[in-house]
Amino acid sequence: MSLLSNIDSPKDLRKLSPSELPELAQELREFIIDIVATKEGHLGASLGVVELTIAIHYIFDTPIDKLIWDVGHQAYGHKILTGRKEIFETNRQLGGISGFPKRSESIYDAFGTGHSSTSISALLGMAMASKLKKEDSIQHIAVIGDASIASGMAFEGLNHAGVADTNLLIILNDNAIGIDPSVGALKKYLTNVKKGTAKDENIFECLNFDYTGPIDGHDLNVLLPELKRLKNVKGPKLLHIITTKGKGLKKAEENQVIYHAPGKFDRLTGEIHKKKLSKQPPKYQDVFGHTIVELAKQNDRIVGITPAMPSGSSLKFMMDQMPDRAFDVGIAEQHAVTLAAGMAAEGLIPFCNIYSTFLQRAYDQVIHDVALQNIPVIFCLDRAGIVGQDGPTHHGLFDIAYLRCIPNLIIFAPMNEEELRNVMYTAQLGLPHPIAIRYPRGSGVLTNWQLPFKKMSIGIAQELKKGTKIAVLSIGHIGNIASEVIAGLPEKESIGHYNMRFIKPLDQKMLTYIFNNYQHIVTLEDGCKIGGFGSAILEFANIRAYTNKISVLGISDNFLEQGTTTELQRIAKIDAISIKNHINTLLNAK
Amino acid sequence: MSLLSNIDSPKDLRKLSPSELPELAQELREFIIDIVATKEGHLGASLGVVELTIAIHYIFDTPIDKLIWDVGHQAYGHKILTGRKEIFETNRQLGGISGFPKRSESIYDAFGTGHSSTSISALLGMAMASKLKKEDSIQHIAVIGDASIASGMAFEGLNHAGVADTNLLIILNDNAIGIDPSVGALKKYLTNVKKGTAKDENIFECLNFDYTGPIDGHDLNVLLPELKRLKNVKGPKLLHIITTKGKGLKKAEENQVIYHAPGKFDRLTGEIHKKKLSKQPPKYQDVFGHTIVELAKQNDRIVGITPAMPSGSSLKFMMDQMPDRAFDVGIAEQHAVTLAAGMAAEGLIPFCNIYSTFLQRAYDQVIHDVALQNIPVIFCLDRAGIVGQDGPTHHGLFDIAYLRCIPNLIIFAPMNEEELRNVMYTAQLGLPHPIAIRYPRGSGVLTNWQLPFKKMSIGIAQELKKGTKIAVLSIGHIGNIASEVIAGLPEKESIGHYNMRFIKPLDQKMLTYIFNNYQHIVTLEDGCKIGGFGSAILEFANIRAYTNKISVLGISDNFLEQGTTTELQRIAKIDAISIKNHINTLLNAK
Repeated sequence: MSLLSNIDSPKDLRKLSPSELPELAQELREFIIDIVATKEGHLGASLGVVELTIAIHYIFDTPIDKLIWDVGHQAYGHKILTGRKEIFETNRQLGGISGFPKRSESIYDAFGTGHSSTSISALLGMAMASKLKKEDSIQHIAVIGDASIASGMAFEGLNHAGVADTNLLIILNDNAIGIDPSVGALKKYLTNVKKGTAKDENIFECLNFDYTGPIDGHDLNVLLPELKRLKNVKGPKLLHIITTKGKGLKKAEENQVIYHAPGKFDRLTGEIHKKKLSKQPPKYQDVFGHTIVELAKQNDRIVGITPAMPSGSSLKFMMDQMPDRAFDVGIAEQHAVTLAAGMAAEGLIPFCNIYSTFLQRAYDQVIHDVALQNIPVIFCLDRAGIVGQDGPTHHGLFDIAYLRCIPNLIIFAPMNEEELRNVMYTAQLGLPHPIAIRYPRGSGVLTNWQLPFKKMSIGIAQELKKGTKIAVLSIGHIGNIASEVIAGLPEKESIGHYNMRFIKPLDQKMLTYIFNNYQHIVTLEDGCKIGGFGSAILEFANIRAYTNKISVLGISDNFLEQGTTTELQRIAKIDAISIKNHINTLLNAK
Repeated sequence: MSLLSNIDSPKDLRKLSPSELPELAQELREFIIDIVATKEGHLGASLGVVELTIAIHYIFDTPIDKLIWDVGHQAYGHKILTGRKEIFETNRQLGGISGFPKRSESIYDAFGTGHSSTSISALLGMAMASKLKKEDSIQHIAVIGDASIASGMAFEGLNHAGVADTNLLIILNDNAIGIDPSVGALKKYLTNVKKGTAKDENIFECLNFDYTGPIDGHDLNVLLPELKRLKNVKGPKLLHIITTKGKGLKKAEENQVIYHAPGKFDRLTGEIHKKKLSKQPPKYQDVFGHTIVELAKQNDRIVGITPAMPSGSSLKFMMDQMPDRAFDVGIAEQHAVTLAAGMAAEGLIPFCNIYSTFLQRAYDQVIHDVALQNIPVIFCLDRAGIVGQDGPTHHGLFDIAYLRCIPNLIIFAPMNEEELRNVMYTAQLGLPHPIAIRYPRGSGVLTNWQLPFKKMSIGIAQELKKGTKIAVLSIGHIGNIASEVIAGLPEKESIGHYNMRFIKPLDQKMLTYIFNNYQHIVTLEDGCKIGGFGSAILEFANIRAYTNKISVLGISDNFLEQGTTTELQRIAKIDAISIKNHINTLLNAK
């Protein structure tokens, strides 16, 4: 690591001769592999852009020239070369550096990313600012993958950038894969371009870009002169480079989906360290994936939709078994939702699986295309609540608040695998409304979960435990923490626990009983407190003029940081100890 | 009207000979002009597709074949030919037919529209449903304008449709204008196609579409055989037609922006009936438009952004005077928001003006690109609250609820023109956070509004009137109704009135005073009650353990219909009489 060890900023990098850069690339790649092998994180994307990262910082005058990494999975090399080498081992940990570019972390992170396809718009904003400020020499570079550039937002950026007359370079990092393999007509077109079978005019030239490529993104002898040349070309430019995700680690090149974020692995062989095999509860994701297959075998109107998350959501199970009925539509949440609406309008039963944080991308479509027309789409909101080390860009903390205000929408959160299965079963039997089913990232609580389906009653909560003084009203999986806490309390007889199941419609009968029989109500959710489930209970109490004391436990009005889910629950005061302390304070106050 | 009078459904239309259709087109055009001239509505778009509407229903087997009108402004001819001729004069009125396609209104309205660029996704969903159901003979047609197809969501739909292998025909209705003239690289490209200066390969062919055109969309002799031919072509097809918005009414052709929705006009000359000229309060839109120009003259870091609404938002004033600093980015709300974030990140002061209902399209960008990074973008949310006759697709009722849960965001609603001016002035002086300023469609209350700027204090409410028993807490313009009501009450001495101004941060000091000095609190907002401003007051009261009675007045959990604003306020019980009755009930209960 003789070269890398001397690089604390791109200034140091620029002191090297071009002939030394391949060696630096080798060192940088090894550095990334070494750390990610033990500390975990996103691997394949950063390995694929090692040469590009070096070339950009070598040719361009960062941070004066602006550089945006779309999505940001691929920015590890960038972080290491821009002053964060020593702290890179804190990547994604509580208090450590972010797994994504972050403005507050470094002047080299021109714009924070995490969700895809934002880079062109943000970069164009910066380029237009430079133009207005007459800082004409500043260059603006975005690196965006072929999966991300196919998203609508990126097209909107291209459509504007093509006519905006700024110094702007889009580098299309084409590796034919996002997290899962890329899809869609544009991907097909790019494949033709690479094969030389596309016709003369280029789609990016249609949008008024100066297009060059495709070139080998791992060959510094090609990359460096091309970037140097483009530095002196005015106007909107697009450079198409071909790279291999996972480049330099054989197993990562061969299994690109798995090595997107492989967990711990052997740094030399790439072999993934297997976790201990004990009988553990399944991930909610897998419960979804297995259950939709099971249901779809019985009901031929069921279809599945995922915007670019077949592996993450486990819709892959259905795609493998029923490829004509399960669809990866690419990074296209807006399209996914309205596609589902169109299907449901014609009698299909679409399960539209979208991560909570990404449904924010399709908020209008949920309102305007689904709920307003009262079309019974079944939304499965994966990764609702705290997601852990991906941090604030990826937590799913707002969905209860932003969905609750939408008329016609049913909102449900399962407390365990069985409830997820049963609500999926119930939804496909036919509901008079669309439904959003929110569940967290990670494991449930039941090992014996594949039980016969039971129909659930919409808007009916569950009394888990009677009490006398305090009623805990929980929503979803986090209720399991409350159950454990209550079971461990000496005063447990006085604590009731209610698994509310439905955020909307609320179980008004159960709530009436609760408010009439308990002095104090504690609501518990793994979402934002403002406008959330607790707020729904306050609204109910106010309409009914109940004056019981109500404590709302949930996420305060801040963006929650990265860390393990347990660490973050503690910070948010929705962990076992905080819940226990809160109940004890209430008990002692009486 | 001898032909049109005999047409109650497309079946009747199909009995005519092709040679009779031009005459029918003439009659249909006159029918539209006659009704819109007196009843108001959207004119230009429907006039532009008269021939296309006839041709589609003539060639295709609607409603078995599915037809979706993107945005839906242009569907008047479609409504008239599909059984709604007799009730067309109720268009856009309370209880009348919708100004947009609406599934619940007619079997011929395959999918409800209103917001743009949804048609391809919905249509593809239907086409995929037909394919799965093995209903291979069903055709699927969407008509989408050149402004709408440039939006990201439409691209997502094209990208998927290009590889989905369904019977799907996209008709690109290219008239080079949306509500305002179209913009962007795609528009430029389409212009080149029309001029014959584009190169060989077509951008839609790049996306795997069978492309034909451009053809004259007003020539039935060309349209009919081409549609007939395409009916027998399998797979994804795109037909590019050229039309003139406002076709057939000279003034509408000449002034396409004004005649998009001209209000009442002379059916023969097209002359718009001028409204009485008395000294009236200005529209909030114009206050925004004049004020941003005034501020931008003093502060050269100010820029303005609108996604395709320069006329509607009055950003046009700035675009005319400072074309290098005010930008129409097209129907691209996602891009608009992140573009603004990029600009603000580099020190500009962007006013990003988006209609409340359309900000739903950029919800993720507000969270992920602006608020998370705490970038001080200034959002002006036009048409917040009830918008009137555009109805449920266009009301801006959810913004308080969906924005309130976002950390770092300031939310303000001006009660009058002066407050709008002063908050805009204050925001451009520099705030530590992004801000959303929501104001309604239509006129303010002050005739003398162009007063010297005064800096406002963030999070500070205004006591309009002291009282003793009941405090009315209003947010924004609707507070004027409350003011009038209170002034007219015999018991006015006991009623306090507070213009809360900031939904976030709340004026906690003022609220503390209010809760300590009044028995009953009434909150008033022109937005949804769930999660809205009233809910914020409930949350405050709960945290502080206040037990005052609180009444929340706002929009109930339903999609509000179309009608005049006054009619809809009455339905929502936030009109003067309802507020008065509510206060009287509270007074009598004491």
